[in-house]
Amino acid sequence: MPAKLIDGKILAMSIRQQVVRDAATLLEKGLGIHLVAVLVGHSPAARVYADNQARTCRDMGIRYSLLEFAADITQVQLNTELARLAADTTVTGIMVHLPLPAHLNTQETQYAIDVLKDVEGVNPANIGHVVYGHTIIAPCTALATVELIESTGVPLRGAEVTVVGASRIAGKPIALLLTERQATVTLCHIHTRDLFIHSQKADILVVAVGKPGLISAGHVKPGAVVIDVGINRVTTANAQGQLVAITVGDVDFQSVLPVAGWLTPVPGGVGPMTVAMLLKNTLRAARLVHKLEKPF
Amino acid sequence: MPAKLIDGKILAMSIRQQVVRDAATLLEKGLGIHLVAVLVGHSPAARVYADNQARTCRDMGIRYSLLEFAADITQVQLNTELARLAADTTVTGIMVHLPLPAHLNTQETQYAIDVLKDVEGVNPANIGHVVYGHTIIAPCTALATVELIESTGVPLRGAEVTVVGASRIAGKPIALLLTERQATVTLCHIHTRDLFIHSQKADILVVAVGKPGLISAGHVKPGAVVIDVGINRVTTANAQGQLVAITVGDVDFQSVLPVAGWLTPVPGGVGPMTVAMLLKNTLRAARLVHKLEKPF
Repeated sequence: MPAKLIDGKILAMSIRQQVVRDAATLLEKGLGIHLVAVLVGHSPAARVYADNQARTCRDMGIRYSLLEFAADITQVQLNTELARLAADTTVTGIMVHLPLPAHLNTQETQYAIDVLKDVEGVNPANIGHVVYGHTIIAPCTALATVELIESTGVPLRGAEVTVVGASRIAGKPIALLLTERQATVTLCHIHTRDLFIHSQKADILVVAVGKPGLISAGHVKPGAVVIDVGINRVTTANAQGQLVAITVGDVDFQSVLPVAGWLTPVPGGVGPMTVAMLLKNTLRAARLVHKLEKPF
Repeated sequence: MPAKLIDGKILAMSIRQQVVRDAATLLEKGLGIHLVAVLVGHSPAARVYADNQARTCRDMGIRYSLLEFAADITQVQLNTELARLAADTTVTGIMVHLPLPAHLNTQETQYAIDVLKDVEGVNPANIGHVVYGHTIIAPCTALATVELIESTGVPLRGAEVTVVGASRIAGKPIALLLTERQATVTLCHIHTRDLFIHSQKADILVVAVGKPGLISAGHVKPGAVVIDVGINRVTTANAQGQLVAITVGDVDFQSVLPVAGWLTPVPGGVGPMTVAMLLKNTLRAARLVHKLEKPF
């Protein structure tokens, strides 16, 4: 029996519906929701992304502003702008588009985002709060991964979990959130000597490397939950022999499908859930800023 | 051949000598080093500890103050006091004695400690900085564990490491620091189904549970590095049949000694190194506060 597919689009839809209801509840009370996205330098790709984001937010009743700075802004100036957004009581959410120009320090910049307004959950303090067991706002991709796993009904407590990839944006936060859910987590990466040993024993296998075809059937324990966080654009030939660009994950889907118990597709798995989690975090941040919820 | 012992006392001694030299360098420049320890409620045990700490600091040229508050101080008051210490330019280090009275939130309190003055490395932001790859100040016990492993010459990069125990003070920060050193880390805890599978494959086994005799020969891969973070007071009969209190770790020392390649004794392993790391962090904090070193 092939793996059951975990449909990230449908799950994301139900989360977005909840966000719409939560936003309406706040707006009825006269409490605004205002997300400010910071973009340094003029990137056409980031502008397209920002335009999409603005539309999504508008559909939800969330005010959205794009705040653009010149590519030569200094770290001190950028930190000052982020402190200004932290102090601005009309702003309830802040995110900073990556990548930043090379002269700016990503970690220092993210640390300057107000912890309560940090809708992407990227401020180091926020992952620290996750580590110490009391989450304020968690990173979106990690939240998406947890929700996708929980939707299968496979229990996380005591599960053997292997996370492949130790990036700051995905693998590390994912490993930390799954540890919080009481799984036994092994975090593998480029220096891991034998990936097979760890992947084959995993009840739940999370792959977040950015390398198409990294995981095939031989890596996977029969019946395992496999979450594919990778999003890779590759060029391939279609049935007519034409070269076309498609999006694939890190998992060789056709190879793993007959072995796994559950599998996320790419696209349509982690991607839409990550966007939904950003919206959910935006509501959480607004409730924190409006003191409807407490950070501790 | 029995395991080589890793002598934490000797390693700690050399770190303390370096701290004395570093302190002298600062003092020669007219830059003070002032550690403030915060104690809430009147605990005779904490007073004894504080007296010892004061003496140790004095020996190093570090000014030490104990700041005591009544057991009924509110969270808001305590946060205000910690903010005052953060703003006080004559204070270069801050630590808060645990446990706090039950009405106070440990995580919120530690989050109120200035990140640059956080000599124990317990502010959630500081472990977050470790997670994201740029450490400002790391937790003492985790630093001690890394130093003890590195003293053996066994490389951490690519090593299979199992950490047993996922406490906030020890297991989790240890797992994170070892991941930063590019080891493949599995973090086990009370919900782990089969500890043997993970402990037996470990090139490096770190045990931080607080349960005497938890780890015996059957858990350990021959030749492995075993770091025993546990410190347990137990009552036992001496050769004369009298009951005496002794300190033991989580590892059954006599059982594991013939199997392991390296082993830390308890006492005399992680304990003295943790104290040395607190002193080393106190100097790091002073250099950060005096802007001799930058956080980013």
